[in-house]
Amino acid sequence: MKLATLKDGSRDGQLVVVSRDLATAHYATGIATRMQQLLDDWNFISPQLEDLYTTLNQGKARHAFAFEPRACMAPLPRAYQWADGSAYPSHVRRVLHARGAEVPAALLEVPLMYQGGSDDFLGACDDAVFADEAHGIDMESELAVVTGDVAMGATADAALEAVRLVLLANDWSLRTLVPAEVASGFGFLQSKPATAFAPVAVTPDELGPAWRGGRVHLKVATLHNGKRLGEVDGGPGMHFHFGQLIAHLARTRNVRAGAIVGSGTVSHDDESQGVSCLAELRALEMVREGRSIAVWMKAGDVVRIEVVDAAGQSVFGAIEQRVRLLGEPAAVAEGAAAAAGDDAAD
Amino acid sequence: MKLATLKDGSRDGQLVVVSRDLATAHYATGIATRMQQLLDDWNFISPQLEDLYTTLNQGKARHAFAFEPRACMAPLPRAYQWADGSAYPSHVRRVLHARGAEVPAALLEVPLMYQGGSDDFLGACDDAVFADEAHGIDMESELAVVTGDVAMGATADAALEAVRLVLLANDWSLRTLVPAEVASGFGFLQSKPATAFAPVAVTPDELGPAWRGGRVHLKVATLHNGKRLGEVDGGPGMHFHFGQLIAHLARTRNVRAGAIVGSGTVSHDDESQGVSCLAELRALEMVREGRSIAVWMKAGDVVRIEVVDAAGQSVFGAIEQRVRLLGEPAAVAEGAAAAAGDDAAD
Repeated sequence: MKLATLKDGSRDGQLVVVSRDLATAHYATGIATRMQQLLDDWNFISPQLEDLYTTLNQGKARHAFAFEPRACMAPLPRAYQWADGSAYPSHVRRVLHARGAEVPAALLEVPLMYQGGSDDFLGACDDAVFADEAHGIDMESELAVVTGDVAMGATADAALEAVRLVLLANDWSLRTLVPAEVASGFGFLQSKPATAFAPVAVTPDELGPAWRGGRVHLKVATLHNGKRLGEVDGGPGMHFHFGQLIAHLARTRNVRAGAIVGSGTVSHDDESQGVSCLAELRALEMVREGRSIAVWMKAGDVVRIEVVDAAGQSVFGAIEQRVRLLGEPAAVAEGAAAAAGDDAAD
Repeated sequence: MKLATLKDGSRDGQLVVVSRDLATAHYATGIATRMQQLLDDWNFISPQLEDLYTTLNQGKARHAFAFEPRACMAPLPRAYQWADGSAYPSHVRRVLHARGAEVPAALLEVPLMYQGGSDDFLGACDDAVFADEAHGIDMESELAVVTGDVAMGATADAALEAVRLVLLANDWSLRTLVPAEVASGFGFLQSKPATAFAPVAVTPDELGPAWRGGRVHLKVATLHNGKRLGEVDGGPGMHFHFGQLIAHLARTRNVRAGAIVGSGTVSHDDESQGVSCLAELRALEMVREGRSIAVWMKAGDVVRIEVVDAAGQSVFGAIEQRVRLLGEPAAVAEGAAAAAGDDAAD
């Protein structure tokens, strides 16, 4: 089943079922109006939505309309929890290496995970607004899952059974704000502004054999201003699977329905696959050339993130966001795009 | 205005208005059923609740009933954000000193703040359930505010204007899990299990002159197994006021209605006021006696936290929680209480 949330002026938007090919959608009215409502009462509501999904895919849904990713909020526009792991060791090693920081001894034993802000997620095509270019604006292409209720102390297997939906995320990061927050020990706060999500949330069964071992075995493509940064397989480089990440979160507390748990930046030791964030690119450049060449994102820059399945079908729809500075109207930001492109070419 | 949320078997409970003396309550049915609903639409809903509050205080509300703190969930049972500051330098200095860690140079310049889990808050009288006594179970008595919408880049003054409600919290901490999480740089996660809140949320005007300079100038009393740990004034020791804490959170992102921002453990350099957590008590013992004597909380231990105003009236109602271990039924925990008390007396 594929689901999305349409903008309707409200804080939670309007839940819709989306066809497998992302061509059409149908309001879930009469079944559920909001995504959290579905997550709160999954066993009762989801079978009804699955029926609608089947009808929609057969082209028999009466009030189907064209699906428009730009009209979407994040599938869950605000959540009660967003806990983001860092489950790809090659990402951690590269980024820490570039910062001159030590790789934790327990990297492969204990998941790294931070608690993120979840009150103000961005839609897939919403401008990403930042206070200051000097903060070191960077994308992070990630996979994530939405859970049902998970009791404190749940095993990784039980936690994996609680995965309800799979998401694609852009976990925006402000690199120059990271070192001070990491040094404080209190973790990321200002360095992790609002996260964006691809328009469509999918149940794990939609991924077919690509969902195995608690991982998504599909390539995550990241483009910066139209230029390929990476097409990185989300499966093999993910050391801890989603069940292990959720169980880590649930070790000392209950995790409630609608919690979003992220994979961390998708990464792989195979450098030919490229990267999913500029920090890794800069780290690789540092190793190869002795200096970082890539610059952080600027006003007008565009990032596109997408996952395409074996049949060539976009799974979650694409994230496509333009960077805008606080106080700039959208139109000014578009004007600034060309200028920023020129700067980047210098 | 004073508000609470009654348990009704649902995830969000039922919003009620509570009389100033905490003696009676009245359903807000017909106005709003859930606390988040009020926060989402404050300007429209709150005047109607204020009218009901006036009627209730006059003893004229038709369907008033006795207010029962044990029937309460947290005022906001789950929130889209819980960002907890550490605004009392004496707390930071004492705890870091005891850990042998360095006090950050910017302690008085940049607020310390971590993002907490907000999907599963505890009611004021709910048992606090933990996986393992060896995790170093400790209370932290804190003040907190619930905000309206705050735009990215808001000034501290503007942020302070967005304070809608004031809360009293018990930010449970697992001390032996802290060092590894702080060292990772990713911040507190497993070391901060579910937070509890006093039953009643109050609008700032309820505090009268005790609400000034963005701080709560009232004593926070903390008792451990009936023994006074502290009666610490929440005002003078708070270096950053709530407007500054909210503005810190909003520096790089929007803060949306219903975000909870905490003060950190209430503390004061004046040692005669006592402490609001065992970590500080142990730190002071270390300085005074060369070793820490107090032990972390055990199964059956009880913590009580309360704020009483100048007229002797409990402002938020009391937090009164018993520690229970995962897998123990409540009855067994009560049986274990005496045993734990004996141990503590050894």
